[in-house]
Amino acid sequence: MKLATIRTGDTTTAARLIDDDRAVKLRAEDVGELLRCGSFDEGEEFTFAKEDLAPVIPRPGKIICVGLNYAKHIAEMGHERPDVPALFIKYPEALIGPYDDAEVPGFNADTLDFEGELAVIIGARARHVNEADAADYIAGYAVINDYTQRHYQKRTQQWHQGKSLEKTAGFGPWLDTEWQPCPALTTTLNGEVMQHAPTDDLVFTPAKLVEFISHLYPLEPGDVIATGTPDGVGHARDPKRYLRDGDTVRVEIEGLGAIENTTRVV
Amino acid sequence: MKLATIRTGDTTTAARLIDDDRAVKLRAEDVGELLRCGSFDEGEEFTFAKEDLAPVIPRPGKIICVGLNYAKHIAEMGHERPDVPALFIKYPEALIGPYDDAEVPGFNADTLDFEGELAVIIGARARHVNEADAADYIAGYAVINDYTQRHYQKRTQQWHQGKSLEKTAGFGPWLDTEWQPCPALTTTLNGEVMQHAPTDDLVFTPAKLVEFISHLYPLEPGDVIATGTPDGVGHARDPKRYLRDGDTVRVEIEGLGAIENTTRVV
Repeated sequence: MKLATIRTGDTTTAARLIDDDRAVKLRAEDVGELLRCGSFDEGEEFTFAKEDLAPVIPRPGKIICVGLNYAKHIAEMGHERPDVPALFIKYPEALIGPYDDAEVPGFNADTLDFEGELAVIIGARARHVNEADAADYIAGYAVINDYTQRHYQKRTQQWHQGKSLEKTAGFGPWLDTEWQPCPALTTTLNGEVMQHAPTDDLVFTPAKLVEFISHLYPLEPGDVIATGTPDGVGHARDPKRYLRDGDTVRVEIEGLGAIENTTRVV
Repeated sequence: MKLATIRTGDTTTAARLIDDDRAVKLRAEDVGELLRCGSFDEGEEFTFAKEDLAPVIPRPGKIICVGLNYAKHIAEMGHERPDVPALFIKYPEALIGPYDDAEVPGFNADTLDFEGELAVIIGARARHVNEADAADYIAGYAVINDYTQRHYQKRTQQWHQGKSLEKTAGFGPWLDTEWQPCPALTTTLNGEVMQHAPTDDLVFTPAKLVEFISHLYPLEPGDVIATGTPDGVGHARDPKRYLRDGDTVRVEIEGLGAIENTTRVV
């Protein structure tokens, strides 16, 4: 089942997708509300354009990002393979829809970079959950671009300030409740392949991450774990390749879906 | 004016304090809702005990913590004076009331430490705000303990996982809309002074922090900035002094108020 948050006039609705342009309304304003307290009773069928897709969870209570989780990306960034995941936070204000523009003010528009990632979406309250039981707490998966300002990320010891610029991180296109990690993640920049890796090559799997984080604090329905990016980011290239006004980044995970966002310096 | 969130049976109410045990109800469930959309119309007067005080903002949209902001604490942790603030995130699940116990499961109860801090509470949406105008966006101040698990803070490059354990961070006792930074912050452990510093000794002032953060993303009413801790934390002592079951930490800011929380290993 594919669940999306679709813009309808001034508001949004949660919906179950029938195909690429048809959906059925569900009784919640968005997929986050649906997971928390909504009903899967179906309402009317309607058509939509891909530009109508909002961030699949518009206001997650938490977006927890994993810093280094693909062995090759860990190496390209000059780090050692970690024993535990490095966690940092992105705020919901950073999210944009799967086909929205990333809008960056000129004063922040330096050293912008992409990070294609698999996003895990929590479906039930998880506290002290073991890896073996973690699947029961995962609603499904989506695609996220952990859009990054590299100078801000690195000018202090803490990455957060480079990881949460407003209106930058594409998230969607939908929540797939059946897809299972395995096929490949591919990031292209203006059509050129930048990242390509199997999503089952994670050092810390979705189940392991649910175990790890739920022993720090509770995870709630609609919370998101961005599982880290593979090698090939612009910052690690020679020469470095940062995003400029008009650049389009597409992140596709095979069998799951794609997001495509163009950077606009505003 | 002092505003508090007070437990009343199964719910809470925002209230204006008259004195130490009397308050007037305001039309919002908590001070966060009051700042976002509440009314300052006053309801009935009631009495309360200090144990009835909930975290003054129970569910801030953001709790943004500043890593190193007092010159002497920067030195004791072995860091250089920064050009920009290091920011990391605490989640609302970490908050407890100003007189609640910090409840830490045994498997997390290693290397626990206190960090007494001045908290800035945002009163109006702030985006691209200059330092000179920042006071217009600050609702007032409170006291927070940026309770920390030092091993978790330091085992990866990112501090978040040691900074957000559930039910650890005392926050309150109230929001004071008139207090102005200047007098001293004092942290005691079982009555012994551990930290003592003037709160106007910050490298980055509340106004500067509002300017800095609001150029990354919007700040919203009820958002919290924890401005960093002065020297004297347990981790930096010789010998180190971590918190044990039954230890009571009190953080007082002169003229603003005090919070006092006992650690319980559960």
